[in-house]
Amino acid sequence: MGRWEPNARERLAKAALELYSERGYEQTTVAEIARLAGLTERTFFRHYADKREVLFGGSSGLQELFVNAVALAPGAAAPIDAMAAGLEAVSEVFVDRREYSRQRYAVVAAHAELQERELIKLASLSAALADALRGRGVTEPAASLTAEAGVAVFKVGFERWIAAAEERTMAQVIRESLDELKAVTAGG
Amino acid sequence: MGRWEPNARERLAKAALELYSERGYEQTTVAEIARLAGLTERTFFRHYADKREVLFGGSSGLQELFVNAVALAPGAAAPIDAMAAGLEAVSEVFVDRREYSRQRYAVVAAHAELQERELIKLASLSAALADALRGRGVTEPAASLTAEAGVAVFKVGFERWIAAAEERTMAQVIRESLDELKAVTAGG
Repeated sequence: MGRWEPNARERLAKAALELYSERGYEQTTVAEIARLAGLTERTFFRHYADKREVLFGGSSGLQELFVNAVALAPGAAAPIDAMAAGLEAVSEVFVDRREYSRQRYAVVAAHAELQERELIKLASLSAALADALRGRGVTEPAASLTAEAGVAVFKVGFERWIAAAEERTMAQVIRESLDELKAVTAGG
Repeated sequence: MGRWEPNARERLAKAALELYSERGYEQTTVAEIARLAGLTERTFFRHYADKREVLFGGSSGLQELFVNAVALAPGAAAPIDAMAAGLEAVSEVFVDRREYSRQRYAVVAAHAELQERELIKLASLSAALADALRGRGVTEPAASLTAEAGVAVFKVGFERWIAAAEERTMAQVIRESLDELKAVTAGG
């Protein structure tokens, strides 16, 4: 298994994004990522399957956190309030990560294969959230619609949060987006 | 340019889906699709870039119809009501297409590359709807959130409409899904 490298996973992700942003995604090799992180290629492949996956290393943890917060919201909470609890929980992950998030978004947006992967991850998140809501006794189509609404708020809120002039926290922007969704569906 | 073949586009799409459902997507060739449709390979390639594209031939027309209905809704209509007009307009496209839609959905769901393509089309639809709403004077984030909500209702409604026991029309199921989304976001 090799020796333990402190924060190898995070160092590799940071190095990869730095190279993707500066030289371009296609032009960067796994060897270069490992070198910049001060690690070996072998260590890279212990953590990530390939250079695409290094951009999505956080997504399963994010999904787990989101889904758990929805599942563990108070039993009496309405579906949309359980979803709000999930959105609040994931917002915490983004504290101090605005610049990283901006760079990552720019790289993903510039490559069709990365965008497809991102969309697949969001679809998987939506399915997992619907499942968590059904586990709370929410019936269909309410469970799937609430899950889709939650992912929409997350997506639109995230894109606002990384905008150039934005200074509010992710939690604030997400809360505003959820309130806005409630207002538009109420016909406001 | 070749001679004019009546309904070539639709005949090719029908033949392709029949073969994909019976023999599998990977196992089917363009030559076989053309033969079953009583057309030549050359005619196939005049209409579709490849055997993947034949499953998505309707998506640009559907997007145009949806977006136009949103854009042309009465000026006084609230964003969500303009979206409802768009959803109503696209529902018409699905009249008499339930069996075709079921088969197509099954083929797409079974292949990651087709699912990715479907998700890209839905993301493009959402962006176009947000654009149409901004054209109506709707500000952000309301425009993007209403667009995402519309696509969510379309997606969840469509999946219900193709369910085995479902007999209501697409328009009815979509209307119910929109009402349900309004109820869940209102905390019901």
